[in-house]
Amino acid sequence: MTTESTVLAELDFPAYAIGDDVADLLFREARSVGAFTDEPVTDDEIAAVYDLVRWGPTAMNITPLRLLVVRTPQARARLAALAAEGNRDRVLAAPLTIVVAADPAFHRHLPVLAPHRAAMVDALEGQPETREQMARMNTHLQLGYLIVGLRAAGLDVGPMGGMDAAAIDAEFFAENGWKSVLLLTIGHRDGVGTPHPRAARLDYADVAQTV
Amino acid sequence: MTTESTVLAELDFPAYAIGDDVADLLFREARSVGAFTDEPVTDDEIAAVYDLVRWGPTAMNITPLRLLVVRTPQARARLAALAAEGNRDRVLAAPLTIVVAADPAFHRHLPVLAPHRAAMVDALEGQPETREQMARMNTHLQLGYLIVGLRAAGLDVGPMGGMDAAAIDAEFFAENGWKSVLLLTIGHRDGVGTPHPRAARLDYADVAQTV
Repeated sequence: MTTESTVLAELDFPAYAIGDDVADLLFREARSVGAFTDEPVTDDEIAAVYDLVRWGPTAMNITPLRLLVVRTPQARARLAALAAEGNRDRVLAAPLTIVVAADPAFHRHLPVLAPHRAAMVDALEGQPETREQMARMNTHLQLGYLIVGLRAAGLDVGPMGGMDAAAIDAEFFAENGWKSVLLLTIGHRDGVGTPHPRAARLDYADVAQTV
Repeated sequence: MTTESTVLAELDFPAYAIGDDVADLLFREARSVGAFTDEPVTDDEIAAVYDLVRWGPTAMNITPLRLLVVRTPQARARLAALAAEGNRDRVLAAPLTIVVAADPAFHRHLPVLAPHRAAMVDALEGQPETREQMARMNTHLQLGYLIVGLRAAGLDVGPMGGMDAAAIDAEFFAENGWKSVLLLTIGHRDGVGTPHPRAARLDYADVAQTV
């Protein structure tokens, strides 16, 4: 394992199709952030990020990612009460928190999203567990695009899994049936930096086999 | 829903932190590709992509994404036989196919990846179902980073879910216990283009609520 990108120089690889500044922004210098400045994050910024990342591929183009944008002090307090204790202050302090959610009713959009699979609507209607699993997996896939997209818009993110997901679903998603996946605090990192040193990653040789 | 990025002009959003060329490369003009040129894809190219995308965040930094790089004609034939019928020719024809897999034994790396969570190793050892679900979810998250990273290296991808996953696991992962998630054909798109017109996506108003 390594803690820095020391591998690249040893490879026969001329260059990425993006500049080093972009590679740093999106991946190499990006960090999960716990403390943000007071600079606000607007709904239009989030909409612009979504406009970019919605083009990322998903299985059958089901695109089940849904976003609850938590902005008002009242909504923020409702959400913070259902976050893990260590995450409550972050939800209250961040310029914006999004509840990333998966929509198990994604199949109702298939006539638009995948017209050649429209016959799947009826088949999937009777398979709620399959739909929820498909929704959760593909929401995680889209969450990967979303985190990259937020960074591409110059924003920093703090993903937090610690929450009472069932309680959040009951509090916010009783009508639409969305399933909460993750809390994502969003803003601009403050100059103080992040609480932990950068965690290590596995090397390519640890994760890949060639046959 | 819209089929093109017509939304951005209506937003109060000055600019992404990446150029339009990068936004097009990674998201807006990228397409899932079914037919590739003969230009080869090297192991070093894949290693360079991994070197970039491994920095993307995962829950507890578990980074369970694993890659089986299928290169030899023999291995390619073994894999194609276990792909869905409609995907076999693509596996045989693509410059390279990767079996994207999830490692339920990710917890054994926690002393390196998340030293402050090293106590979780023993707790997770006895929870194989929890580990497999965590591995699958976070592999999908990393798959989002991986697809973006392959495009950032100037490569095109054709993700394919149609396969006999259990048979692939038995054929290739009997020893390491990896769980196959997806087939990813990789190369450079040929000039002929893609088989389908671009599929529609939901608009921000369809997927987001603000409270």
